[in-house]
Amino acid sequence: MSLLSLFINAGLSAVGAVICYRLILDYIPIFIARKMYGNDQCKVSNAPVPEPMGVICAAVYLIVMFVFIPFPFIEWIGMDTFPYAKLLAILSGLISISTAILLGFADDMLDLRWRHKLLFPTLSSLPLLMVYYVSGNSTTVIVPTIVRHLVQPFVVLPITINISFIYYIFMGMVIVFCTNAINILAGINGLESGQSLVISASVSLFNLVQVYRFGADENAAGFWHHIISLYFLLPFTACTAVLFYFNKYPSRVFVGDTFCYWSGMTLAVVSILGHFSKTLMLFFIPQFSSNPRPLFLQTINFLYSIPQLFHLVPCPRHRLPKYDAESDTVSMSVAEFKKSQLKTLGSIFITICRSIRILYVEEFEKDGEM
Amino acid sequence: MSLLSLFINAGLSAVGAVICYRLILDYIPIFIARKMYGNDQCKVSNAPVPEPMGVICAAVYLIVMFVFIPFPFIEWIGMDTFPYAKLLAILSGLISISTAILLGFADDMLDLRWRHKLLFPTLSSLPLLMVYYVSGNSTTVIVPTIVRHLVQPFVVLPITINISFIYYIFMGMVIVFCTNAINILAGINGLESGQSLVISASVSLFNLVQVYRFGADENAAGFWHHIISLYFLLPFTACTAVLFYFNKYPSRVFVGDTFCYWSGMTLAVVSILGHFSKTLMLFFIPQFSSNPRPLFLQTINFLYSIPQLFHLVPCPRHRLPKYDAESDTVSMSVAEFKKSQLKTLGSIFITICRSIRILYVEEFEKDGEM
Repeated sequence: MSLLSLFINAGLSAVGAVICYRLILDYIPIFIARKMYGNDQCKVSNAPVPEPMGVICAAVYLIVMFVFIPFPFIEWIGMDTFPYAKLLAILSGLISISTAILLGFADDMLDLRWRHKLLFPTLSSLPLLMVYYVSGNSTTVIVPTIVRHLVQPFVVLPITINISFIYYIFMGMVIVFCTNAINILAGINGLESGQSLVISASVSLFNLVQVYRFGADENAAGFWHHIISLYFLLPFTACTAVLFYFNKYPSRVFVGDTFCYWSGMTLAVVSILGHFSKTLMLFFIPQFSSNPRPLFLQTINFLYSIPQLFHLVPCPRHRLPKYDAESDTVSMSVAEFKKSQLKTLGSIFITICRSIRILYVEEFEKDGEM
Repeated sequence: MSLLSLFINAGLSAVGAVICYRLILDYIPIFIARKMYGNDQCKVSNAPVPEPMGVICAAVYLIVMFVFIPFPFIEWIGMDTFPYAKLLAILSGLISISTAILLGFADDMLDLRWRHKLLFPTLSSLPLLMVYYVSGNSTTVIVPTIVRHLVQPFVVLPITINISFIYYIFMGMVIVFCTNAINILAGINGLESGQSLVISASVSLFNLVQVYRFGADENAAGFWHHIISLYFLLPFTACTAVLFYFNKYPSRVFVGDTFCYWSGMTLAVVSILGHFSKTLMLFFIPQFSSNPRPLFLQTINFLYSIPQLFHLVPCPRHRLPKYDAESDTVSMSVAEFKKSQLKTLGSIFITICRSIRILYVEEFEKDGEM
């Protein structure tokens, strides 16, 4: 029965993708008429690009989910053994997702303050964590074999440890991390939607492999966890694929913060409902090192960025590659600022970096100032 | 225990009201900086009025609800008799409310098409109706005594009739009606927030009286229905009161469609969860006749408006009273249009009305046209 629901879910996802495609074409002129657009900073033409188009796909996603919800439960209707906990899991996930979409859309329109952006997803995940709690879900984690071997001379660790409330704090952090992780990458055509597509397709594949391993035995302990994850992820993957089609280079639409919060929250929700929040972190490795380069280079990148991150040196809003309109190519990222804006620490840093030749500095006069 | 939760709910509502007040003051300059404002068409000064401020109060409302949810269920945690159906009812209500807020905010920003505005609340109420169904809630209605007496000579009606699926259609219509009913009144300072405040305060009073009548007997059949309604309505009343404070004449903020959908959906949700959707219609009587005048005058108003409603005569977007800046007063509503825009039927209507002296017509030349 769960497998039949899965096919219905896949069918609805396909319908959702078609609706997304039509609605995006439908709303592109409306967005531009309402002055909701950005300009691509790395293109010759300065045509307006509608933003945030993610809200259209997110709305279609919600509708697909609403229409789908009754199907997995049809067989139980009117029976005393109705699986309330399963319906609760789906509804609490949907609450978190729909509030994340609302938050993202508000952020696109209003540029919310940072503390509100961190507080809101934390609180909106309360129903999800509460449902996790009352459904008696496990808070036991497996101790990695390597850790057990390392500490064996000193203390003998059990194979599993119940970390109880710490697990809830961990899940809360997963939610805040995921909702913001997709958002920090912005400024390159198709990057946000593309990576979400890759992550969600990979997680779906992982779920499908697990379902296959259970041999479609519906009563196996983990079977439902991977099925519920697929219920959420298939429509998401379908809608995101359509969005990526419009968002990839050269971008015809921008996804906006709406998409980033929606996508991050959906991935966080499925990892919690599907009990693979630790595994999800593996799928987010591209996030920790946003380019395919070794971790130590990534660390160097972070260290090198410190003066900008802590505002010792003026930092542009998006640290984009510098665009050269004449050759239609991009080169290394530069920041332009007045010498008077530089703080003492920042100027020391620049002098050191310049002397060991890891920073390119050009001094020129503009508006009568250095 | 339910009563204790009710006090906690009231306390959180008060905190929510304070947060609303601070956030509105905080976000007024942000709204204006982001060009999200309207101009009051009935004031001398043309100062920008931030819109849609309803989204701030709605966000605070959601947070209050998220924080509150665990409290009514604390006593059951870890017990086998956990009331899943009650938690499901609250979560499904919250899904409908949060998607209504999202829809309203999108409508404010994008001016959505009418078919999308009707379709979205219908679909977003599916989880609510489904939870109503699986919780085995009644679809039996009481036949009004007067109807039974009238048809007695022909057929003997039972005291109650189970109308089964028709009841679900009725509830779906209540949701669509409520979400749009608050929205059609706009253009007069404080009208939307004021009437929502009156309705929600009245319904809360009705719930409190019913709870008192049950003598705080928690096991009585209807007790929970009125308690759950209060859980949703107290924070709503608190947040709306603050919004009304800013929205009443002279308006410092406009509430926007966000508020109208939020408020309509909240009232619809409590009436369904609280099993008083028929009673709620009584509270919406001011909606059917938006001024305190007898019904036959209201009907005349409707008939008189037909030519404008069916676009035989050009109709302005808001049919506001005409504002006279010199005397700072308002007079009767007028519409200004070119003679060439008038359709044949419309011009016949105007000639008839003019001859029986119920229409004021002034012909003048502007831009070279009549």
